[in-house]
Order: sequence, then structure tokens, then C-alpha cells
Amino acid sequence: MIATENNIIALALDLGGTNARFAAITADGKILSRLKLPTLKNGSTEEMVAFIIDGFEQIRADAASRGDVLAAAAAVPVAGSSEGGVLEQLPNIPELEGINLQAILIECIRLPALIENDATAATIGEHWLGASRGVDNVIGITLGTGVGGGLIMEGKAFRGKNGTAGEVGHICVEPDGHPCGCGSRGCVEQYSSGTAIVRMAIEAGIDVDTPLKVYDLANEGDGRAISVFAEMGRYLGIALAGLVNVLNPDAIVMGGGVSAGWNMFIEHTRSEVSERAFREPAERVNIVRASLGEDAGVLGAARVAFDRFS
Amino acid sequence: MIATENNIIALALDLGGTNARFAAITADGKILSRLKLPTLKNGSTEEMVAFIIDGFEQIRADAASRGDVLAAAAAVPVAGSSEGGVLEQLPNIPELEGINLQAILIECIRLPALIENDATAATIGEHWLGASRGVDNVIGITLGTGVGGGLIMEGKAFRGKNGTAGEVGHICVEPDGHPCGCGSRGCVEQYSSGTAIVRMAIEAGIDVDTPLKVYDLANEGDGRAISVFAEMGRYLGIALAGLVNVLNPDAIVMGGGVSAGWNMFIEHTRSEVSERAFREPAERVNIVRASLGEDAGVLGAARVAFDRFS
Repeated sequence: MIATENNIIALALDLGGTNARFAAITADGKILSRLKLPTLKNGSTEEMVAFIIDGFEQIRADAASRGDVLAAAAAVPVAGSSEGGVLEQLPNIPELEGINLQAILIECIRLPALIENDATAATIGEHWLGASRGVDNVIGITLGTGVGGGLIMEGKAFRGKNGTAGEVGHICVEPDGHPCGCGSRGCVEQYSSGTAIVRMAIEAGIDVDTPLKVYDLANEGDGRAISVFAEMGRYLGIALAGLVNVLNPDAIVMGGGVSAGWNMFIEHTRSEVSERAFREPAERVNIVRASLGEDAGVLGAARVAFDRFS
Repeated sequence: MIATENNIIALALDLGGTNARFAAITADGKILSRLKLPTLKNGSTEEMVAFIIDGFEQIRADAASRGDVLAAAAAVPVAGSSEGGVLEQLPNIPELEGINLQAILIECIRLPALIENDATAATIGEHWLGASRGVDNVIGITLGTGVGGGLIMEGKAFRGKNGTAGEVGHICVEPDGHPCGCGSRGCVEQYSSGTAIVRMAIEAGIDVDTPLKVYDLANEGDGRAISVFAEMGRYLGIALAGLVNVLNPDAIVMGGGVSAGWNMFIEHTRSEVSERAFREPAERVNIVRASLGEDAGVLGAARVAFDRFS
């Protein structure tokens, strides 16, 4: 068989705190098969590793007859791409803290393997096949349980010195604001994440446990819920205005579960950006929703594998 | 004469609101001659242009016998590198607003010419021959009348889509803070610039008109002046912590007149960065003083000319 873009395959995983998405993806971006599993909870490190290996083996079994499997790539919620291999700072998946997942993948599934930060992977996926295709300078933002981010600069993923670049969720927007799990205070994640929406709603006297319920109330006209989204969007805009001034990007692409509340917060975000950022870069930047949905992370992880191992 | 790095010359200008520094610089970074003039004040646009042309002609007359003059480069306090040529948003040199300085230089001094943002030029100069030599990812900050900045990413100046990238002075550090000339509120420039130091000192009941006087008082042990620098350094650190999280740089290099107060503010800045930024990038980044002093801007402008026209 002659290797073409259509029959070289990467196995990709996007490992979230809630779901693990596996996929087999061709070099031209076609998803041959998907496997979505609830992320194993409260297991040991060994059980979590077995869960990951097993998912990769299932997706490989599916894909093997359709082409040459080149590599495996895992997008994980780690602060950085962990070039060295050892995962650090994964508050949502503590079972993997301190282990070398890259080495384990290479050994257990006998393929070249890599680890990528999940928000960087999603940003790369959207740049490859989604909302920021063909654009040079992009800030990708994932609005989920937390606020993650990734950067594309002059057409390439930018990871910084240690691979930790892109942590836009920990830009300070209130110097003496709400304490953050990162050790700082007033990070934008404390105002614009799903967790923050629930907290602010409870503070406003609404009895809810998910951001979706706050969103539903806001859509029904509940003034307190509407105000929560206004506040969430306003703080997001303060952080984005600074990024627009510093990076002068073509596009800001926002995905993640909380981006489903787009119509409730985006005007507040846009108005902060246009009031606070310099006119030229504020007019230039397109602030848009991600378009690949749940596939962005696996597609981005696969793309990094093709770039590195092809 | 055979062209070598030693006898190809760029003419450079670093045009500040207070002084205009002209220099003739060889391709290996040797400054053959300097000319420092007080910037013309309250003149017409024509008079300001004549002042600039005259300075370039003086420095050229000096340099012409020593090599081949390649190009002219002007670093100006404009929000961006104005690739198109027309200068916009120069609050400190309003005489140049709306004119095409690049085209005028090409026509009047009959050399290839370019315009660069002054803080970007200083960042490039420090990266070429100063405090960030040999380092890949750098944030350059100029603490002067305002707060300017420039970026080096993966070894190259990063200017963004319109050439306005690097405006670190307008990161918001107090969402409802002091109004800023840029139209926003609570920009770090409103707390960490020379102008801000004087304002905060006056608010603290100190009768001063320059940041140097506040610094002298702080050195004499005046508690109010010491607190002004603590506040200045603290807000600077809040902005830098966000940049460290987003860009994961090797170095932050700070120059400009206000950096002379280094010993009064830097510990406050460093402690905010280490408390607020993620551990890995906070440990990685070197926060250092610029080392080229007043020459950083002309050296950076010359370097851009050599890169573009050689």
C-alpha cells in the first residue's frame, strides 16, 4: 500500500475531567472512528493508565485495517506540553500527576507518542480545520470547568520556554479578587469559567449546580442569571482587551462547554474589548466561536503527531 | 572598498518626547557617532520634519567617509510599526500625527528607510547586543513617561497583525481604576509609569514634579515615597504575572528612565510574579534591567534596517 494522506492514521485522545474522547484520524483530517468514554473516576494511577491504554487499543483495532497507524497523541489538561514527559499540575486528573505518560504510551502501545496541553490541542485543531483556518495569529480559549488557552503565532503553535504558554485563564482581572486554585487571586478563571458562573449565581441567590441551569434561567428572563452572564462576559473582555493590545491577533476563537452561553455573554465581552483595547487591533480581531465542537482536541493532537512524526 | 560588517552603516533615530538621539551604526553593532538633541517643541509639522531630516543629514555627514550608508531607520513612539507608512496615535509627538514619515525620509534623504515602534526597537536592541542576547523569548518593557513594550518570540521580533503588538502598558490591572489616555481604565501605565509615580506621590501628599524626586525621597527614607514605589512595583508585577502565564518567556528586560528606580520597586514586582504566576514559568523567567541604556533604541532600529535592507 502506498502511503497517502488518506491512509496514514494518528490515534488521538482528548482526556477531560468528565469524558475521554479517542479518535483515529487521517493526515487530511478525516475522523475514521470515535470512542467517547466517561473518564475513570477515583481509580488508582495504574487503573487510569490501563483505561487510557485500553481506549487507544480499541481505537487502533478499529483503524488498523484502514491504513498505517503512525503515532498516538494525548491532549491532557496539564499546564504545558510536558516535553520532558512527566505530567505536572493536573488538578482535574490527579491520578496522572508525576507520571511519564509519553513513555508509558510508547512502551505499551508501541508507537511514537506525544502529550499536548488540551487547550493548545483545541487551538491547533481549530486552526487546522475549524474557525481560524488560514489565519496567522490566533488566541484559542476554552471556556469549561476552568479557562484554558493556546496560541498560534505566525502560523505555528507557540508554547513558550517550558511549554506552558497560553494560560490565559490566569490573567488577573481583580487584584484583590476571588482566590484561585493556582495560588493567585482574581484570575479571569474565577469570573468566566463554568465553576465561576455557578459560584456567582449562588452568590446572587440562585439555587443551581451547573452553568447550564444558570443559562436556562437567563434565557427565561431571570435578571439575576442575566447579570451573572454579564459579569462573566465583562471580565472575559477585560482579559481579552489586554491580550489584544499585547498580541494584536487576527482572531480569538472560543470553545468549550461554557461557550454554549455565547448569546448571553458575548456582547459584554466585545464591548469591553472595544472600549479598552487600542482601536486598530480591536477593529482587526475577530472574536468568534469555535466550530469543531468536541472534535477540536483530538484533531489538534493528531495534527501535532503528523507534524512531528511524518 | 569591499563591503564588510564594519563598513556598512545604518543611520538611526530614536525620537522621544524629550530627546532625539541620532546615531551611525555599523552592521556589527558599533556606534560610530551619536547626536543627541532636545526634541523640537511646539513646532509645526514642517518644522518637526525639517528637524528630523537635519539630524539625519548631520549624522550622515559624519559617517559617510567611514563606510557605505545603507539605510535610515526611525524609532518613534507610535502604537505600531506603521508598515503602511502613516503615523497614527503619537500622543507625545502630535506634530507627526497622520504624516507618512517613511515616505518623507526616502524622498528627502534618498535612502531606503523604515519606521519602528520605539519600545520594539529597544527590545530588539537589547536582544541584539544587550541584556537578552542569545535568548529566544523576551518581553521588553520601557518604563518612561508611559509604559511601552516589545516582544521577541522564537528569536524574532513579533509585531502582530497590524504591527501594534507589544503594548503591555495597557494591560488592565484595576478594572475600575484610574482613567487612561488610551480610553480604558486601570491600565498598568496608570500605576507604573513616571507620570503615575508623580501622580501617586502627589495623592500621598508629596509636593513633586518628577519621578526622580520621588525616588530621591524614597532613598532618604520618606515612607510615603517608599509606598509609592511599592505600589508601582506591585501593579507592574500583576501585569507581568499575566504575561508570564500567557507567554512563558525566558526573560523580561526592563529599561527606560523609570527603571533607574529599580532597587525601590523590583522586589515588589518579583514577589507578585512569584505569588501569581504558575511555578514553572515564574521560576524560568529572568526579570532583568536593560543594559544598553540610551543606545537600545538606535541599535534596535539599525538592526531592523540591516535585516530588511542588507
